[in-house]
Amino acid sequence: MQKHIEFMSKAIKLAQKGTYTTHPNPRVGCVIVKGEQIIGSGFHVRAGEGHAEVNALASATQSVEGATAYVTLEPCSHQGKTPPCADALIAAGIATVVYGMQDPNPQVAGQGLKKLKKAGIEVIGPVLENECAQLNPGFNKRMSEGLPYIRVKMAMSLDGRTAMESGESQWITGSAARLDVQRLRAQSDAIVTGIGSVIVDNPSMTVRIDCDDQEVDSTSVRQPLRVIMDTALSIPPEAKILKPGKETLMFCVEEDIEQEHYNALKKSGVNIEFAPVGEDGRMDLIECMGVLADQGINEVLVETGAELAGAFLQDGLVDELIVYVAPKLLGSDARPLMRLPIEAMKDAVDLEFESVRPVGNDLRIVYRPKYLDDALLEE
Amino acid sequence: MQKHIEFMSKAIKLAQKGTYTTHPNPRVGCVIVKGEQIIGSGFHVRAGEGHAEVNALASATQSVEGATAYVTLEPCSHQGKTPPCADALIAAGIATVVYGMQDPNPQVAGQGLKKLKKAGIEVIGPVLENECAQLNPGFNKRMSEGLPYIRVKMAMSLDGRTAMESGESQWITGSAARLDVQRLRAQSDAIVTGIGSVIVDNPSMTVRIDCDDQEVDSTSVRQPLRVIMDTALSIPPEAKILKPGKETLMFCVEEDIEQEHYNALKKSGVNIEFAPVGEDGRMDLIECMGVLADQGINEVLVETGAELAGAFLQDGLVDELIVYVAPKLLGSDARPLMRLPIEAMKDAVDLEFESVRPVGNDLRIVYRPKYLDDALLEE
Repeated sequence: MQKHIEFMSKAIKLAQKGTYTTHPNPRVGCVIVKGEQIIGSGFHVRAGEGHAEVNALASATQSVEGATAYVTLEPCSHQGKTPPCADALIAAGIATVVYGMQDPNPQVAGQGLKKLKKAGIEVIGPVLENECAQLNPGFNKRMSEGLPYIRVKMAMSLDGRTAMESGESQWITGSAARLDVQRLRAQSDAIVTGIGSVIVDNPSMTVRIDCDDQEVDSTSVRQPLRVIMDTALSIPPEAKILKPGKETLMFCVEEDIEQEHYNALKKSGVNIEFAPVGEDGRMDLIECMGVLADQGINEVLVETGAELAGAFLQDGLVDELIVYVAPKLLGSDARPLMRLPIEAMKDAVDLEFESVRPVGNDLRIVYRPKYLDDALLEE
Repeated sequence: MQKHIEFMSKAIKLAQKGTYTTHPNPRVGCVIVKGEQIIGSGFHVRAGEGHAEVNALASATQSVEGATAYVTLEPCSHQGKTPPCADALIAAGIATVVYGMQDPNPQVAGQGLKKLKKAGIEVIGPVLENECAQLNPGFNKRMSEGLPYIRVKMAMSLDGRTAMESGESQWITGSAARLDVQRLRAQSDAIVTGIGSVIVDNPSMTVRIDCDDQEVDSTSVRQPLRVIMDTALSIPPEAKILKPGKETLMFCVEEDIEQEHYNALKKSGVNIEFAPVGEDGRMDLIECMGVLADQGINEVLVETGAELAGAFLQDGLVDELIVYVAPKLLGSDARPLMRLPIEAMKDAVDLEFESVRPVGNDLRIVYRPKYLDDALLEE
């Protein structure tokens, strides 16, 4: 077992190299081992190109006949843009497959493993299942729940404020935290913001990674889809986020828009989706996120103000809350972290602490909201 | 030098044993070394009892003639409740004294060292000066500035809220954080609170340390002075904090009180001081803290609500801000961390990050306010 953990860890490290490039596919790594020696390795780089197993087989320095393949995700059994990996492993004469986790799509999970077994291959796993799952929180959630994995990122002062009463907010956190956010953006398939933030801050919401950032290769970074929640479609046409060349998607409510404005935006190439309206009269965020999942969006980063962030939280959509805490106090007149009307302590939103680390002069704290009961939600 | 650091570290460890007991005296440790061997060691336990040097000399397992004494603080040269330590070291035939830091009182600093040198003792130091200074932040500040060292402790939700709008606040943080606060109380000479907290929470503000707390010996813990800031002396006579048996001090403003109430409190044994009023019409907190320092108060723990905490901060009195962050969101209607009216980002209060660590399910974050410019202060 120790041996399996060692080689699977290597496969996980390889998979991580695809963090910024594989969308909408999952990050997968593979090593091929013969007599305790790694004789081949590979990872999936980007959609349409070779899967991890195929790349690993191709890299082998000697015959893979009778070898063991360690792969972080169950090998696929269906024809996609590339042929099924299970077939490739069988054809190559692999004797044993150690897998990290099953295909998260409940309708296909196990098919690839079954195919391997049927061909006489020994199948072992899952090994390091949690670690392998963490490679693809978005892909896994999309496959199993039809929703993307949603991170809400906020920058606040120690006293939980995101902007002055006037709206002034640049910059609360330091440059190291802002670079860290760029990496969060780079690993996301879509960045969601609200019309309020667009009007106040006029952000580009693009990934700007310097060439000297050791962690991210700026030349291979894909620009995430930029998504704007704008009920009445009141975005100014000159907003930077609409700058052509990058993909933008707007969600609005059909009854609330002016046709003329809609036509003009459409004509300039902006994608617009009509969002359904929930019982509370607000745009139905769960449905909107479902639309994104249907488009292959695995990981969403929400970068927005108190209103929309609060709505995501109240709708039970937030998987991770990433808060950068700046070493300052903005005072009691400044704007709140999230618009959340809560009256009694028993209705407070419970969070699960995940991690904390200093980033420059700021602290980066990650929590997971606990959606176990109805403590949250609809007053 | 390596040798000096090693033995001074041991002396510091000894000094720390007095953390909860030496007030109003400083925590001091001493080891006596002969031929690289420790032959005696001691620390100051409580006022009126032997100083560290005297305890170390008394513990020596062989003649200290020609030995080296490592002491975290310059040996005293004046007659206090006990005879001067410098004289004791000279009389014992100590050859070398290595000291951690000079006496922080600028009017006496160096007198003890001078006396030792005059007697032919070799004097080396300061060694590990910062570490030795950290043993006694309160004593040092009182000696040099005539003010106690002030820690403000607050418990808040991630979104910077300390209580619901209704005032409901028990309990935001978990039991581990509350135990940690007990240790903060135990090492403080005084606990300051405001009349608002007294009325809402009716706290005892006593140190309650369990016998099984490994860090604090519950039998030797001294109850800190309880200080209540109560401008109009409107405290209910049945408030737990006035419970007899523990020392309580109230600050009020002479013009704002009812004589009858004053007389009744005085009669029941409560100490009352009239506080001067500052230009802004508020009680002058700096003067009040000066009064505490004059009474030998080294370290103050402020445990109070948004108003008084904000006032301490605005008056430049806060040395350490200790925030326990609970894993929950109390929402945007809940009460702010501190009442601080700030309009523009440039006037935000800058903090220096000191440390962060999990305590149970909460985070304990320590900051030092930066009082370098007038960014703070008086609108």
